[in-house]
Amino acid sequence: MKKFLLAPGPTPVPEEILRVMSEPMVHHRTPAFKAMVGKTIEGLKYIFQTKNDVLIFSASGTGAMEGAVSNVLNRGEKAIIIRNGKFAERWGEIAEKFEANPIYLDVPWGSAIEPKVVENLLNENRDVKAVYTQLTETSTGVVIPVKELGEIVKKTDALLVIDAISGLGGQKFYMDKWNVDICVSGSQKGLMLPPGHAYAAVSEKAWEKIEKCTQSNYYFDWKVYRKKLAKNTDPFTGSVLHVKGLLKAIEIVKNEGLEKRFERYQNLATACRAAIKALGLELFANPSCDVETAVKVPETVDGLALVKKMRDEYGFTIAGGQAEVKGKIFRIAHMGYIERFDIIAVIAALEMVLKDLGWKFEWGVGLAAAQKILTEM
Amino acid sequence: MKKFLLAPGPTPVPEEILRVMSEPMVHHRTPAFKAMVGKTIEGLKYIFQTKNDVLIFSASGTGAMEGAVSNVLNRGEKAIIIRNGKFAERWGEIAEKFEANPIYLDVPWGSAIEPKVVENLLNENRDVKAVYTQLTETSTGVVIPVKELGEIVKKTDALLVIDAISGLGGQKFYMDKWNVDICVSGSQKGLMLPPGHAYAAVSEKAWEKIEKCTQSNYYFDWKVYRKKLAKNTDPFTGSVLHVKGLLKAIEIVKNEGLEKRFERYQNLATACRAAIKALGLELFANPSCDVETAVKVPETVDGLALVKKMRDEYGFTIAGGQAEVKGKIFRIAHMGYIERFDIIAVIAALEMVLKDLGWKFEWGVGLAAAQKILTEM
Repeated sequence: MKKFLLAPGPTPVPEEILRVMSEPMVHHRTPAFKAMVGKTIEGLKYIFQTKNDVLIFSASGTGAMEGAVSNVLNRGEKAIIIRNGKFAERWGEIAEKFEANPIYLDVPWGSAIEPKVVENLLNENRDVKAVYTQLTETSTGVVIPVKELGEIVKKTDALLVIDAISGLGGQKFYMDKWNVDICVSGSQKGLMLPPGHAYAAVSEKAWEKIEKCTQSNYYFDWKVYRKKLAKNTDPFTGSVLHVKGLLKAIEIVKNEGLEKRFERYQNLATACRAAIKALGLELFANPSCDVETAVKVPETVDGLALVKKMRDEYGFTIAGGQAEVKGKIFRIAHMGYIERFDIIAVIAALEMVLKDLGWKFEWGVGLAAAQKILTEM
Repeated sequence: MKKFLLAPGPTPVPEEILRVMSEPMVHHRTPAFKAMVGKTIEGLKYIFQTKNDVLIFSASGTGAMEGAVSNVLNRGEKAIIIRNGKFAERWGEIAEKFEANPIYLDVPWGSAIEPKVVENLLNENRDVKAVYTQLTETSTGVVIPVKELGEIVKKTDALLVIDAISGLGGQKFYMDKWNVDICVSGSQKGLMLPPGHAYAAVSEKAWEKIEKCTQSNYYFDWKVYRKKLAKNTDPFTGSVLHVKGLLKAIEIVKNEGLEKRFERYQNLATACRAAIKALGLELFANPSCDVETAVKVPETVDGLALVKKMRDEYGFTIAGGQAEVKGKIFRIAHMGYIERFDIIAVIAALEMVLKDLGWKFEWGVGLAAAQKILTEM
């Protein structure tokens, strides 16, 4: 059975990336390889839309998240953590592990945050060192108003730290223009690579704080990475394969152009949502991001069976809900190497599964709704 | 120009491993992928020669080294660190970062350690929590007497922690039989994979200490990995590619058989050393390990030029000396996917470069010396 991967990471990897990643191994300290590292850093600056330093880690995205806490917050220091999903919670778990002092702003899953609330909290807590949130919260499909948060946080001494692991390269984002201080990301989502590589872009305001941080870390000691990456090399033996793949991924992103790319994912999202509504289903997220569509499972439908049938009977890996929304939502990702006919295919399969599970609608209404939008791309 | 990679990691990757690593991406939470993870853990137990838990990390080997400190030593706790090379020093750097209390046993680079010295030090310091060393110290080519250290450390409450990053799968090693408590390794050496994956095998004695450790860590929190890997899954999005490659690597190791493999690398080492001696050069390490041959650069020869010429003019990536032995030694690795005709080729190139640099010997004496040993394999 032909397989379709529309889960929120790992996403499908373009054939041309897999090909360069299967070339013979090269040594990581050669001038030829260092030149490649240099090019990937320049390319990542374009994708992050930043002039700041960009660091590269051999790790899952969570490794970069850990670094964005352990290099920034000393023990006992205050940080605001906007908590509206599973990955938002991860910021809190890491901050607690490193004995920082998190102030949680709890928001119902499926919602974003009212920026004014953050502003008020910052005014009441002048000693907050950083505000942690996501660009897109993958567990719920929500987009967070990062631009508006940037306007607020830049007026304070605090840093704005964004997990853009699932958003980067798909969801509209401009690190410098939006006044973001630290942005972390991973390879296996919008960048179309296999998992195993993580990134962090770091502003000068952030480096000033990092220089004063005294937490224990070694593998994720960003000060050491900064020195080494300035010479286009890694403190350790980095993932040679991922660097090669990343170079190709950057070429793909540049050839399409970042603005065109943002527009394309916006269209995929609009098409996917139009199909969902045409099928009589409701969206879970408000506001919805452009790289994933989260859908409420109707009460008469078995949400776990839906995701399982999609995979086992039709070959489509999509995502269910996690933790408190387990069985209550399903999520179709349209990040990374996903184009319009992938959306057509997944909606077709979804219709088949929904019919199986007893949901009532006319065959093809979802498809037609999506098609009308996708034809204009 | 055809390229030859005989550096101590990354080593060449067998074509069949590159091939499985370039297959279409799969999702990391599917039953099919979990079954693969389960098989890799079983396979790693064979390679480590252990019944203990084996953990898998998406990181460079240094990430596993950090975990072997940050999950074990509380702040202020004593550890003996045998310091006889660059990677031995890394244990110390990590221990200091995590504010442990390292007691250094300094040994000249190129030498191993007299086990009796460790025994005496342990007797004088009953509160030592762990002894840290390498199986093979890649910066010098030395093999450390791990078996003898195991006999000593097992009689105490301390743990024996071994960095086998460059040794595992090549240098003779039996974790359980040799009473090793924690052994860490990486993908890009004896296991023939690209860099980006790290491993740790952990004894029950070690878990007891780990349960009592209060250091801050998240990405390398071994207790969480233990729980997740018992269900054949990863706490985060692990490197799908490396798991697929590892499965193939394990198959290759099993097909050859670990004992045969140890013997083969021993023969490669013997052949390489015979060539070096026939060329009138001296070995640097005593005792020498089986996965790398470190050679003293004669005073009349330019050591940096030797390594550069090997690479730029002949296509052979070997390693020079690091830190205090920079320019004074060169190192030919014979770990991972290296067989006898790779040794022939590198010795041939070495003869050409040595002639270029004015060293006096008869053409082919190195080759003949190696050949006599390699013909018997």
